[in-house]
Amino acid sequence: MDRPTYNDQVSDTKRTEAFSDGVLAIAITLLVLDLSVPARNELRGSLAHALAREWPAYGSYVTSFLIIGIIWVNHHTVFQLIGRIDRIALFLNLLLLMTVVTIPYTTHLLATYLTAGSGARTAAIVYSAVMLAMSCAFAGLYAYIAHRPALLAEGVDPVAVRASIVRFSAVGLALYVATVVVAIFSAPLCLLAHFAIALYYCFSQIRTGPSIADATPNPPDL
Amino acid sequence: MDRPTYNDQVSDTKRTEAFSDGVLAIAITLLVLDLSVPARNELRGSLAHALAREWPAYGSYVTSFLIIGIIWVNHHTVFQLIGRIDRIALFLNLLLLMTVVTIPYTTHLLATYLTAGSGARTAAIVYSAVMLAMSCAFAGLYAYIAHRPALLAEGVDPVAVRASIVRFSAVGLALYVATVVVAIFSAPLCLLAHFAIALYYCFSQIRTGPSIADATPNPPDL
Amino acid sequence: MDRPTYNDQVSDTKRTEAFSDGVLAIAITLLVLDLSVPARNELRGSLAHALAREWPAYGSYVTSFLIIGIIWVNHHTVFQLIGRIDRIALFLNLLLLMTVVTIPYTTHLLATYLTAGSGARTAAIVYSAVMLAMSCAFAGLYAYIAHRPALLAEGVDPVAVRASIVRFSAVGLALYVATVVVAIFSAPLCLLAHFAIALYYCFSQIRTGPSIADATPNPPDL
Amino acid sequence: MDRPTYNDQVSDTKRTEAFSDGVLAIAITLLVLDLSVPARNELRGSLAHALAREWPAYGSYVTSFLIIGIIWVNHHTVFQLIGRIDRIALFLNLLLLMTVVTIPYTTHLLATYLTAGSGARTAAIVYSAVMLAMSCAFAGLYAYIAHRPALLAEGVDPVAVRASIVRFSAVGLALYVATVVVAIFSAPLCLLAHFAIALYYCFSQIRTGPSIADATPNPPDL
Repeated sequence: MDRPTYNDQVSDTKRTEAFSDGVLAIAITLLVLDLSVPARNELRGSLAHALAREWPAYGSYVTSFLIIGIIWVNHHTVFQLIGRIDRIALFLNLLLLMTVVTIPYTTHLLATYLTAGSGARTAAIVYSAVMLAMSCAFAGLYAYIAHRPALLAEGVDPVAVRASIVRFSAVGLALYVATVVVAIFSAPLCLLAHFAIALYYCFSQIRTGPSIADATPNPPDL
Repeated sequence: MDRPTYNDQVSDTKRTEAFSDGVLAIAITLLVLDLSVPARNELRGSLAHALAREWPAYGSYVTSFLIIGIIWVNHHTVFQLIGRIDRIALFLNLLLLMTVVTIPYTTHLLATYLTAGSGARTAAIVYSAVMLAMSCAFAGLYAYIAHRPALLAEGVDPVAVRASIVRFSAVGLALYVATVVVAIFSAPLCLLAHFAIALYYCFSQIRTGPSIADATPNPPDL
Repeated sequence: MDRPTYNDQVSDTKRTEAFSDGVLAIAITLLVLDLSVPARNELRGSLAHALAREWPAYGSYVTSFLIIGIIWVNHHTVFQLIGRIDRIALFLNLLLLMTVVTIPYTTHLLATYLTAGSGARTAAIVYSAVMLAMSCAFAGLYAYIAHRPALLAEGVDPVAVRASIVRFSAVGLALYVATVVVAIFSAPLCLLAHFAIALYYCFSQIRTGPSIADATPNPPDL
Repeated sequence: MDRPTYNDQVSDTKRTEAFSDGVLAIAITLLVLDLSVPARNELRGSLAHALAREWPAYGSYVTSFLIIGIIWVNHHTVFQLIGRIDRIALFLNLLLLMTVVTIPYTTHLLATYLTAGSGARTAAIVYSAVMLAMSCAFAGLYAYIAHRPALLAEGVDPVAVRASIVRFSAVGLALYVATVVVAIFSAPLCLLAHFAIALYYCFSQIRTGPSIADATPNPPDL
């Protein structure tokens, strides 16, 4: 009964990554279904004007696309730290994916109601709440992994990982709580806040000590 | 004509897993299409109320998401036991996928009719019947593999696998037959039963003897 | 300039397979979108009756699911014979995928018009014509590969491959031409013919000489 | 802290390729959703005539399918040159994917308005503008990689890569600027121009010096 333990576990992480990548790739691509073509027989005025009126859809699309893209990058970074995965981590990951998969829906909701008198606030709160839930699921998964050195990949420093999750999770949760507050006052401002956070995350990532920086070939360019 | 038999068969299993993962990832993500944004010009009352009325859709979404997630985890576990795959197993797997791919449809059906006077029973029976069919397909694939030691991966104990399929398949079939019975009496209760079964499966998995438990790095946490 | 030629080409084939697998997995899963839930406020009679009237959709779904599943299995088999891929083969493969991706559309078309007085014949001819086009694209890709020994994987016998393509392509083309003829007389019969062909292909595969049969662990079970 | 640097970076590129492949595979398959089945109760005349009137949809489908297919082939070629990836390249790739994912939308827009008196010009300009944006994103990613030898794979000649990007990017940008100009005069002609460009790209690819040509087994057939 000498099962090839190590290879087995490595393949386990790989298949979880592949499944997560698949779900994230599909969720990010389904965002295009939120862009609707104006019906030809209901067109009032020119098509150019009709498309211009769709700006909430375009703005929401770009913002959500960046957000899911960043989730993918960060998911990727976290899984590079993981050497083995257990059942709890598997389901925390599933919980995270469940929140991500609803993003095309909340994006469509926000785009539809962004310029509605009433409804805009509700839509913006729902959009922000799902992002907050995603952030919580991410923090949960990350914290779970960080506190189980046996799950970490070889050469990963548990102390550095634990230090980074405090910063990463705290910043993420604080930012998304802030968007819920902004949503109460203004839905367009809330969308702008999400866009700004996405841009911020483009240039600030999960750090796990000097090991990753060292491995990067040209640090000055980052 | 010295074909690299072993590598060839291993890659066979890998591509079947990749294809299955793809189908499962897409099916789980398509569930979001069952969540519909209330049309802006048909909105009666506030958006918050309109969204609250959508609870059958949210409940069905969460339940089906968990179920497909668990199917993926179990599919994963079964394929870790497989070293080689033949044509029959390939088509049993295709049959399993065919039932899984219909889940976004039955989920939409259940969500739409859950609170309908008539129709709720029919929708709940269809939803449960598809889950039962999925369970049968899974049991069939698992039984087929378990009775062909030549298909099992090295180090996997055929006796342990055969013992586990009896328990796993019997429990699964019994549970899903029970949901069909519950569906006759109450559709919302039926949805709740499916949710409870999904939670149960989160903490109870296919077991194949001590080998897998031994390979898990920190058993006390499971 | 000592580029790692072999590894490069192997990875080439792998990425083409992965892309093709992705497209096939998505196309097979999108078939579920052809199953439509009866609108609650337009329901005449019971839901059970409304669902029963949807039999053309279910029949088309099962048939097309089997067909795309078999395309995947055969695509898989062909790519096991390929060691390297060139630009022409890449685009022949793209052409094949283009026909497969339209299957959810032609399936929806056939399901919608199967029981329509007029229109049924047209829908069945279009459905069969796309399958014929797929069959031609497959034959083209297979013939192209078979006649370029440099593209074949090591240990694959070019003579056996060439012999098998004649049989495989001829049978496939003849069967799908036959369905176009059947489509002219009866759309339901045409759907049944496609289902029968799919079943036939479940038990008859591309053969490339004794090498594959030898590699199969338990031939008597096939 | 001896992290396995090399393997880590290789896997990094692989996961980016896998994610990109996923997004491209989904985007190309979602094109089928732009083909709509004529509603049975709104059918005027025969189904054959109704389908014939859908030629703008079929033409747009084939053209966009070829374009995304070529994007995949070229994306593939570029990533074969990359040994390591950094954060900037990751987000340039995300930007490229963002433009590609909108193609099913602009395809649907073009198909809907191709034969509309007014609107056709706008739709064709939007379609061409998104292709131009895709071309810019591609040129940006390619230029970024080409000017960072540390990111290139071993054995890749930086000088040859830099020479090829000038040609590749200049040709691509010039062609897509031209389609915007054509779009102002005639939408159908613009679609034809995109189809012609796609065919041109089928036989003209990114070249990076003699290394790739040498690795190709049978150059005369290309």
